[in-house]
Amino acid sequence: MSNRQPKIDHLGIAVKSIEERVKFYEHVLGLEIEHTEIVESEKVKAAFLNVGGTHIELLEPTSDDSAIAKSIAKRGEGIHHICYEVPDMQSAIDKCKAMGMRMLDKAPRPGAKGKLVAFIHPKSAGGILVELCQTENSSCPA
Amino acid sequence: MSNRQPKIDHLGIAVKSIEERVKFYEHVLGLEIEHTEIVESEKVKAAFLNVGGTHIELLEPTSDDSAIAKSIAKRGEGIHHICYEVPDMQSAIDKCKAMGMRMLDKAPRPGAKGKLVAFIHPKSAGGILVELCQTENSSCPA
Repeated sequence: MSNRQPKIDHLGIAVKSIEERVKFYEHVLGLEIEHTEIVESEKVKAAFLNVGGTHIELLEPTSDDSAIAKSIAKRGEGIHHICYEVPDMQSAIDKCKAMGMRMLDKAPRPGAKGKLVAFIHPKSAGGILVELCQTENSSCPA
Repeated sequence: MSNRQPKIDHLGIAVKSIEERVKFYEHVLGLEIEHTEIVESEKVKAAFLNVGGTHIELLEPTSDDSAIAKSIAKRGEGIHHICYEVPDMQSAIDKCKAMGMRMLDKAPRPGAKGKLVAFIHPKSAGGILVELCQTENSSCPA
């Protein structure tokens, strides 16, 4: 079943201004913002653009002390994280732990769009901040 | 038509060792390498993993003077570029130029898998090295 396969749920991209950076996605790629939300816990405004079934998540800090603002200050704008949707998140977390990978979240926690998420430390994932999220309806009978 | 819509063709990820880094993708995400090639012009070995219709392209340098080796030396391993498949590449390039974006390739050139590609300078694309590639069969009658 297709919803039992992992996929890229979204790519998180750190931007100083969604209004400025969205121009490339709209004008060159022809994409549209389909959802915007303020994620209070992360102190960011997030704008989601659908691109062939996965999403670009433009992340604009709403506070200078947000993780995204600090990332931009340190590394500049750019790709901040990649989120993989997995059919069984607890299983994925357990596999990461078994491989000795360092989890930033030891248990799933609520993220954008109300999904449960967990982050892997970049040092354990080849320099990439990796987010895992749970496939919706994955608890349906196989 | 679905092939007239842009999508993420692949994410290029710079790694020191494909053999080492592929473990996460295989063991945690359950992905498999479906294609490997040496791209002589780029001095890299590329391994492609299908993830929900798009691809992870692990890029391992075959020479210390390759762009990927230099990127790893400067910034460490991590996401190197994102490639968007567009239905009309010349149109996309023209739109980039009209927006004043700096192209690393002024005209499409052959890339991995024999596809025509063109890169946009990261300074013009929010700190992201963006590759454009042409949707296959996009010249078919609509």
